[in-house]
Amino acid sequence: MFKKILIANRGEIALRVIRTCREMGIKTVAVYSTADAESLHVKFADEAVCIGPAPSNLSYLKMANIIAAAEITNADAIHPGYGFLSENAKFSKICQEHNIKFIGASPEMIDKMGDKATAKATMKAAGVPCVPGSEGIIADFKEAQKLAKEVGYPVMLKATAGGGGKGMRAVWKPEDLEKAWESARQEAGAAFGNDGMYMEKLIEEPRHIEIQVVGDSFGKACHLSERDCSVQRRHQKLTEETPSPFMTPELREKMGNAAVKAAEYIKYEGAGTVEFLVDKHRNFYFMEMNTRIQVEHPITEQVVDYDLIREQILVAAGVPISGKNYYPQLHSIECRINAEDPYNDFRPSPGKITVLHSPGGHGVRLDTHVYAGYTIPPNYDSMIAKLITTAQTREEAISKMKRALDEFYIEGIKTTIPFHRQLMDHPDYVAGNYTTKFMESWVMDDPAE
Amino acid sequence: MFKKILIANRGEIALRVIRTCREMGIKTVAVYSTADAESLHVKFADEAVCIGPAPSNLSYLKMANIIAAAEITNADAIHPGYGFLSENAKFSKICQEHNIKFIGASPEMIDKMGDKATAKATMKAAGVPCVPGSEGIIADFKEAQKLAKEVGYPVMLKATAGGGGKGMRAVWKPEDLEKAWESARQEAGAAFGNDGMYMEKLIEEPRHIEIQVVGDSFGKACHLSERDCSVQRRHQKLTEETPSPFMTPELREKMGNAAVKAAEYIKYEGAGTVEFLVDKHRNFYFMEMNTRIQVEHPITEQVVDYDLIREQILVAAGVPISGKNYYPQLHSIECRINAEDPYNDFRPSPGKITVLHSPGGHGVRLDTHVYAGYTIPPNYDSMIAKLITTAQTREEAISKMKRALDEFYIEGIKTTIPFHRQLMDHPDYVAGNYTTKFMESWVMDDPAE
Repeated sequence: MFKKILIANRGEIALRVIRTCREMGIKTVAVYSTADAESLHVKFADEAVCIGPAPSNLSYLKMANIIAAAEITNADAIHPGYGFLSENAKFSKICQEHNIKFIGASPEMIDKMGDKATAKATMKAAGVPCVPGSEGIIADFKEAQKLAKEVGYPVMLKATAGGGGKGMRAVWKPEDLEKAWESARQEAGAAFGNDGMYMEKLIEEPRHIEIQVVGDSFGKACHLSERDCSVQRRHQKLTEETPSPFMTPELREKMGNAAVKAAEYIKYEGAGTVEFLVDKHRNFYFMEMNTRIQVEHPITEQVVDYDLIREQILVAAGVPISGKNYYPQLHSIECRINAEDPYNDFRPSPGKITVLHSPGGHGVRLDTHVYAGYTIPPNYDSMIAKLITTAQTREEAISKMKRALDEFYIEGIKTTIPFHRQLMDHPDYVAGNYTTKFMESWVMDDPAE
Repeated sequence: MFKKILIANRGEIALRVIRTCREMGIKTVAVYSTADAESLHVKFADEAVCIGPAPSNLSYLKMANIIAAAEITNADAIHPGYGFLSENAKFSKICQEHNIKFIGASPEMIDKMGDKATAKATMKAAGVPCVPGSEGIIADFKEAQKLAKEVGYPVMLKATAGGGGKGMRAVWKPEDLEKAWESARQEAGAAFGNDGMYMEKLIEEPRHIEIQVVGDSFGKACHLSERDCSVQRRHQKLTEETPSPFMTPELREKMGNAAVKAAEYIKYEGAGTVEFLVDKHRNFYFMEMNTRIQVEHPITEQVVDYDLIREQILVAAGVPISGKNYYPQLHSIECRINAEDPYNDFRPSPGKITVLHSPGGHGVRLDTHVYAGYTIPPNYDSMIAKLITTAQTREEAISKMKRALDEFYIEGIKTTIPFHRQLMDHPDYVAGNYTTKFMESWVMDDPAE
């Protein structure tokens, strides 16, 4: 087993990793930027090394400084957390070269899953369903017609050079295809000087449902069921839950098996997440695979009684997994508490926390790196806490979340607590009736208005 | 279901009850003494009524004030918590007379279980094992000899008027009985002017293991397995755990069945605890029954996923229980954090909490009513928090407790955190090898010395 792990990250995830290391009797090294000198991960680690000034490219992304910190402190492994260098193939390789175990994916694996086209081709080869569509640019309208028939309506025409919705058309019926094809091409040509088009099946009422997997160094993988992360704002997840209210035991079995098959096909080692889009007919399509721990991993831990960070460490140390899959025994919800003003377009609200009272009691878990008197630096991600409630039923988990949110006092900055309070009362959320489009239509009540 | 519950208590248990009420959608009324105006239970309840000055007999024990508060606020039920009026037959009766549901035992039940002799006789009749011994005062040495033979050595001679160990003798062999009998009688006569003696079987290496039961208004009861509360100091529990490291599946079955039999025999309604002494041969003997929620109830909740306060409320509202028993799926430990100086004979240390940082993360539960800036009044029990860790194994729960204790920062007062830190490292505790005598021999390391 490792003697000392350096955590190449900050904030709650650095603290999260330190906690498990302490419980396992493994020493820890924190690294920090000058802006993070007062952070809890620095206080709670056994050792701490300053690796540079606030901008991430000068500290948390500065590979040489991190490797030097590991060598100076004799750390025999590095845990990258999420973000920063967690999916950086070069960093994974440099760790290898320095004989420091990178607690994450191999450089080859990161490369393979990091490139969308390669990832999709690999998953197809593994037999995992991907969104059907053209293999590349469509030659002409005739081919578009043929392809749309194969893929099945509705379809989405997309400009290969596209962005911001330009050159994009949803087509619901065969008779609308020609007009859409012409206008999309014209728009793309005018906007990008490139009228190349490709086609994908349009996913109706899409839900973002991901499967947690763990693979070991013996080629064996297991899944830990799903997390529903459909409540998103501009592709940022706001709250997650497991089980998904949209899940059925059959679909879980199918998606879980697909994810395990994928992980074993690529000989995936460590904790990873296979993200899927699920349409209203419960067809599911591979989106991407994250070769690291996810922000929302605690809800899985809560419902299957499993420490995912511990498992990452064990697998990295060469311990085999049992191979059995894990199914949710309870219901768990996570609300990401961000230092943002939900009444002001979620604008970041860094600054000093003057008063902090944490919620507690039965079924409440709080993962946070902040404390009363702590100043949130403006340089990083605005997430300051993950509030997680767990109960026997979804209804109870929501009730528990509401009372925990009510107990959570943070003064000095704005937070997304009021957003989550309203979300937990939203009829569509309460009914479990939400897709990734949910936040596009919802306008929060603003008490100031 | 009740619309509004008044909580006739303070501190963490008042907050605990409020939390479950909120989750169930039931309104709450806090009552408080003038010393508790700044307490969290006052802030988090929907309504709060001041019921008098600090001394308990003028507020938390003042039945008229509490009933008046319930009537003014239209509360339809009262939850008494633990301590104070929770096992007061008169209060239970007064609630009945005012048509307010007392969420606890009936006056008759409290009377029956509150008197030691009646409780023991009832349990004997229900077939629950009690400590064998004389029925009353022993006539003469001949009878003592006969009884000791029946009961089996070792036995304990006790002065009927006794106290403080005077007139008490442990007798291990028949040949020692006469000398012990004479000297004990003389000592008792000299000390109390009464040389009446009775006899009990001496429980070797006693462990305090209690069984949680819940009974409904239809005469059905179930058990939720055991809690080991053997780590005590002057009969005050310091830490508890479940499962007991001394337990076997067979013993759990026997003790659980005995407790359920007892509860059903007396038609017990609500949550209750049957306390047993268990000797080194795993014989168990009824000690007493607490007709209320226990301080240490959360560890049971953690390992069986069951909200005991919710169940108390449901049963009081006439909802039947399922009748099945609950068995620990995990391991959970509670450390009682008291405002006491463990290096100074556990002397109370009330005062203002200047800094507070709560531990968190996976498997950590904190039940507390204090916060940074809160002043602990000198008038009440010194318990300020219950720190509970839960994991798959005892070893992991201990590791988790150690790291949670390390994260727990309280400044401004002395607490028992250093005591628990040492306890979690004590070889006998780690080995699960402790009895109620554990604290008599252990001398803590004092860093100041």
